[in-house]
Amino acid sequence: ARTVRKQKDLSFITLTDGSGAGDLQVVVDKIIPGWEDTKPGACGGTGSSWDLEGTVVASKGGNQAVELQATKCTLLGKVMDNTKYPMAKKGHTAEHLRKHAHLRPRARVYAAVQRVRNAMAYATHKFFYDRGFLYVHTPLITGADCEGAGEMFSVTTLLPQDPKEDIPRTKDGKIDYEKDFFSKPASLTVSGQLNVETHACALSDCYTFGPTFRAENSHTARHLAEFWMIEPEIAFAGLQEDMDLAEDYLKFCVHYALTECADDLALLEAAPDLDPELRPRLHNLIERPFTRKTYTECIEILESEIAAGNVTFEQSVEWGMDMESEHERYLAEKIFNGPLICTNYPKGIKAFYMKLNEDGKTVGAMDILVPRIGEIIGGSVREDRYETLIERAQEVGVQPEDLDWYLDLRKYGTVPHAGFGLGFERLIMLVTGVKNIRDVIPFPRVPGNCDF
Amino acid sequence: ARTVRKQKDLSFITLTDGSGAGDLQVVVDKIIPGWEDTKPGACGGTGSSWDLEGTVVASKGGNQAVELQATKCTLLGKVMDNTKYPMAKKGHTAEHLRKHAHLRPRARVYAAVQRVRNAMAYATHKFFYDRGFLYVHTPLITGADCEGAGEMFSVTTLLPQDPKEDIPRTKDGKIDYEKDFFSKPASLTVSGQLNVETHACALSDCYTFGPTFRAENSHTARHLAEFWMIEPEIAFAGLQEDMDLAEDYLKFCVHYALTECADDLALLEAAPDLDPELRPRLHNLIERPFTRKTYTECIEILESEIAAGNVTFEQSVEWGMDMESEHERYLAEKIFNGPLICTNYPKGIKAFYMKLNEDGKTVGAMDILVPRIGEIIGGSVREDRYETLIERAQEVGVQPEDLDWYLDLRKYGTVPHAGFGLGFERLIMLVTGVKNIRDVIPFPRVPGNCDF
Repeated sequence: ARTVRKQKDLSFITLTDGSGAGDLQVVVDKIIPGWEDTKPGACGGTGSSWDLEGTVVASKGGNQAVELQATKCTLLGKVMDNTKYPMAKKGHTAEHLRKHAHLRPRARVYAAVQRVRNAMAYATHKFFYDRGFLYVHTPLITGADCEGAGEMFSVTTLLPQDPKEDIPRTKDGKIDYEKDFFSKPASLTVSGQLNVETHACALSDCYTFGPTFRAENSHTARHLAEFWMIEPEIAFAGLQEDMDLAEDYLKFCVHYALTECADDLALLEAAPDLDPELRPRLHNLIERPFTRKTYTECIEILESEIAAGNVTFEQSVEWGMDMESEHERYLAEKIFNGPLICTNYPKGIKAFYMKLNEDGKTVGAMDILVPRIGEIIGGSVREDRYETLIERAQEVGVQPEDLDWYLDLRKYGTVPHAGFGLGFERLIMLVTGVKNIRDVIPFPRVPGNCDF
Repeated sequence: ARTVRKQKDLSFITLTDGSGAGDLQVVVDKIIPGWEDTKPGACGGTGSSWDLEGTVVASKGGNQAVELQATKCTLLGKVMDNTKYPMAKKGHTAEHLRKHAHLRPRARVYAAVQRVRNAMAYATHKFFYDRGFLYVHTPLITGADCEGAGEMFSVTTLLPQDPKEDIPRTKDGKIDYEKDFFSKPASLTVSGQLNVETHACALSDCYTFGPTFRAENSHTARHLAEFWMIEPEIAFAGLQEDMDLAEDYLKFCVHYALTECADDLALLEAAPDLDPELRPRLHNLIERPFTRKTYTECIEILESEIAAGNVTFEQSVEWGMDMESEHERYLAEKIFNGPLICTNYPKGIKAFYMKLNEDGKTVGAMDILVPRIGEIIGGSVREDRYETLIERAQEVGVQPEDLDWYLDLRKYGTVPHAGFGLGFERLIMLVTGVKNIRDVIPFPRVPGNCDF
């Protein structure tokens, strides 16, 4: 129950089962069995749970069309000490709710976000399944290390139960990974992409949808240490197909939310501190083609905007730089007023596996930048030339021998392929208007916090 | 290409893109552009990839109805050194394929299993979504520890990059977890259940579908260190609803496989070492209600079978024991010749959170045992009485203070609820007839192996 109000001869229980945005008002007459339990001392009021039977009738009050006239009233769960119950009737700050993440689903806004999240997960699977993409469960624990060990969590059984014991060492004092569970160092994956490419090169279009991890000491409203990522990989495809798929996918999800989650979007639109223009903004996103510009064109636009005195940025702008969020958002929000697909980035700021363009300077990459969020999708054509891939790996300090299995994909009958990655929580932020990523995932993991 | 055969004036390429169980035979005449590339020395033969255009015609050979008469032939990726290519035309052992897991999707049987796996994942989401269950992403990294730390992987950033450095210590020599990423010990989850209950108690029916981890030194064909689990939680439900949902869900998946994956099941049925009776067995599973018996009845059956001299077991049978696989399979295979739901187990062999029955000896648990696999589902009604839950936790050595957030769910307006867990890989084994769990997941993680 959201609230239980007791009068002399009638009690009013505002009930929700969390399955939708609405409540049900229940009227309990004092002649009804169980009426005694509606006393605040008996049920504890807000938070108590009920099994109620009765008749749906037109409501006499002005706040709802119908209400339930109870014929039987059973208290299922009382709030045992309602002075300590952390979810009072009044609204709470997002921070308070995060501290009580186990009770947070009882808060209206969070509950709506979770229902939208559920719909977006289903829409994702539906979109790819209907197009014949194979869902591949890439591994979470990995012995491969080619995207920068500094950002990865170690997975180990070497930390002793008795904290006064030492971890196993070799004769020369090094950590003895031979004694670890996997007989070598293991980490939590930062991406399933290299793994999913193995299946895309044999089974055609594939995708992953699973958790990924970053051990970055980042305290922003846009980063989590554990988050879910969707990574499709398209066989026999180039940049054009990659951009088309990413745009179609985003639009499919947004359209799905608008049609299947209308009540929840209305609730979110009305929530304090969220986005009162949520649905118009989402409609704008699906109603026209995304703008497509090269990185070089984007840099030129930013430079001319600066030169014209239309904008000043904290970070200066020059070709070769990795654009900051302020630049990305200026382009998407001020220049194009909608999503922008930026393509063909300088090779120096992108991963070694992205296909080198004929100019030798840029790679066949594409990022999708959206208003308010910034980058939401990053993708590329994959370098399918064996020799070029080895050269690019060496340029960025990745040892080819650490990548032999990935190189095998180029060596033994490669096909052109391309793909992208989308952080699922960023999608939920986009579709709900929620500003802090910690409020769109049930139990956020951030530096200093893995409670529950 | 599965094979490339070159004759004097014609080449034959047997082509697959992995999207289905079948192949396409392509005939390349020597007058066709690209014909030169069909020479073994040019393309490398088996494993090479092609872009072929042409006309589909009735086949002259007896092995296929149609074939492609090529009008253009482009070699996309050659097999660079076909003497070293690990995926020769001939069949390979499962062990050889596991060692080359990155190329394994090119093997017919593994490819069919992955297509079935994809269908089963989608069927799972469809089943629960259509019934209004909310998909909840429970956390992978957890600070909670209430199911036995000995089996969990630590997640840490304390292992030094320079292996000669020590891990941080407090003044008294203990590991200084304050300096770890989460400021306390963290592990990989063994189950999302306790976490998903938080959402089921507020948002009604929920489920998780995500990876779970066991650091058990187990080398069987039934265990992985990293596997995917589906855990639905039903609000306002007891044992009856739990059994009904589990049976419906299993039957839905099996029916889905029979109708949507018919070609792949036929391929698997014909594969050496797999199950030639696969589809009859699956039909048998969906065509009649699962047998439902109490644990006590099952023990009595086993005892009378032993007494009658019908069977001898390695492990003796007595009330209170945890049934071994040999007992479970005897019941499902010999006694009931089909799935068996066994209920109301002794409390001593089940988890503390399972609801104590009125007899004080058994709990409202249920396992589903199927022929050839043994246990595939384990579930229970959850103990919703605050005091009883604390007592049961203490009985098994779980400290209530480590579980305060879980206890809050009983303290602040509980509802009766029940749920179950299904190991996704066990489902795939059931539906494909594959006998080793390492062959139904792309990159198996087992003791001593986290390659790729």
